[in-house]
Amino acid sequence: MLDAALIGTGGMLPLPNRFLTSLMLRLDGRMMVIDCGECTQVTMKQLGWGFKNIDLICFTHYHADHISGLPGLLLTLGNSMREEPVMLAGPKGLKNVYEGLSRICPELPFKVIIKELEAGESFNHSVFNVSSLKVNHRITCFAYRIDVKRAGKFDVERALSLNIPKNLWSKLQKGDVLEYEGKIYRPEDVLGKERKGISLSYCTDTRPTEDLPDFVKGSDLFICEGMYGEDEKLDKAIEKKHMIFSEAATIAKKAEVKQMWLTHFSPSMPFPEEYIDNARNIFPETYIGKDRKNTVLLFEEEENA
Amino acid sequence: MLDAALIGTGGMLPLPNRFLTSLMLRLDGRMMVIDCGECTQVTMKQLGWGFKNIDLICFTHYHADHISGLPGLLLTLGNSMREEPVMLAGPKGLKNVYEGLSRICPELPFKVIIKELEAGESFNHSVFNVSSLKVNHRITCFAYRIDVKRAGKFDVERALSLNIPKNLWSKLQKGDVLEYEGKIYRPEDVLGKERKGISLSYCTDTRPTEDLPDFVKGSDLFICEGMYGEDEKLDKAIEKKHMIFSEAATIAKKAEVKQMWLTHFSPSMPFPEEYIDNARNIFPETYIGKDRKNTVLLFEEEENA
Repeated sequence: MLDAALIGTGGMLPLPNRFLTSLMLRLDGRMMVIDCGECTQVTMKQLGWGFKNIDLICFTHYHADHISGLPGLLLTLGNSMREEPVMLAGPKGLKNVYEGLSRICPELPFKVIIKELEAGESFNHSVFNVSSLKVNHRITCFAYRIDVKRAGKFDVERALSLNIPKNLWSKLQKGDVLEYEGKIYRPEDVLGKERKGISLSYCTDTRPTEDLPDFVKGSDLFICEGMYGEDEKLDKAIEKKHMIFSEAATIAKKAEVKQMWLTHFSPSMPFPEEYIDNARNIFPETYIGKDRKNTVLLFEEEENA
Repeated sequence: MLDAALIGTGGMLPLPNRFLTSLMLRLDGRMMVIDCGECTQVTMKQLGWGFKNIDLICFTHYHADHISGLPGLLLTLGNSMREEPVMLAGPKGLKNVYEGLSRICPELPFKVIIKELEAGESFNHSVFNVSSLKVNHRITCFAYRIDVKRAGKFDVERALSLNIPKNLWSKLQKGDVLEYEGKIYRPEDVLGKERKGISLSYCTDTRPTEDLPDFVKGSDLFICEGMYGEDEKLDKAIEKKHMIFSEAATIAKKAEVKQMWLTHFSPSMPFPEEYIDNARNIFPETYIGKDRKNTVLLFEEEENA
């Protein structure tokens, strides 16, 4: 299972009741964050998941509202006694931005690893399997997709019939190829075909792009920006390179995601709920994001258990 | 009159109910700020004084909890349609820190003027008259004092007897030396002796120092850090280069200030009120700072009006 929480849901500037857009994920006790504007650590504290196990922080882009909270979060990670390295990942330019911001947090008790991603690059870090897609904002900006893979079911009868030693079973389930007493054992000998995993995608600060629906295809949860609710704000959305609700819903529908949460609301829109129908008329499984709104995404068998 | 508001009162990291230590002052409609950690703009928004008229931001030092909110505040100033320059002032190092932080706010619609201060330097900017004092923290750190001067009373009978044209009176009251129809007019011709002004001092992130009491002498309001309430935390205060309540009170007493507000509380101290007596036993006019606690400091005649 994958825990997902919107840390904040505001665009441009933090408001007293709506902090800046950010996402936190928890898988097998490890955590990752996407985007980290000013005050992100405050609403994280309210969420209560702790800080110490944050292994990875991804950035969509380097506008201040998506990264200005980084020095504070790193210092708080340091205060939480973290000593293992933390990876920061994002489009090209991260080294330069980090070199600038770290002037106010020069002494951290852990190593910071900077990973500048190529457009479309996928990588694994900690327990997370992350893909990126270049989208269309005023500066280079990426959407992200996190896939939690799910191995096939362990076939006990087959393992017994092949005389596979029981002490190897759990490692084979994890997908390791093993050598034991001169013989090679492979996961595919005892695992059924790969089962449906969990996927989550996160897309903010962009116009709709042609390849977005394919990128987020079938996501269990699609988190998408909806800077403006009204269809009448389309011109403004085009000018600022953001989306209106109905555009986000069109992507969600085309991509056949399970559900979509809207986020990154304009400060000019205090009550995004007012415009929800502009999205639901196109994609009914649309929900308005809220700070600290969270869910547990389950594997199919867990859901049916 | 001078309006003063504590923007935040926390040290080290912003908490959901206590933002980072910062002060905002308003004089003749213009505003200045001292320190600007993460989320400062959020609590400013709650205070409701607006942003646009902030002419000056001073920094005590460049630990993240005193400056990490700068990029966001500058962007919000930009969004408020400000076009006049904004001055940033603080100890040496400000240019370097600003060059780093401004990488995430590269395009502002106003000019940023950086003023690196020598220890002990005084300066005027906008309507504010600011003095600095080097204090004793882990890195170079300044205390600040703001003095609002008060000219002498205008002597109408004397102005009439000297035949000073009435159209010059208000300018002479403001302190200008004037030449008019071949004659020189001086403020001292018609003003009584300078009256008591208003003074406010702000001192955080330091151990007590020998020259602090003289620097804050007679302040109408002395805002002082009190990182720890308990006397038993003296060793910790010495180690971290902060103060306990009783040390702040000892300075206030020696300096004969009118009142002291404590601020910059440790996150480990959720209820500073519990320790107020440790200060009041030494200096009775001690108050615990709260986010957005504010007051109006008046000239003596205004007080008695």
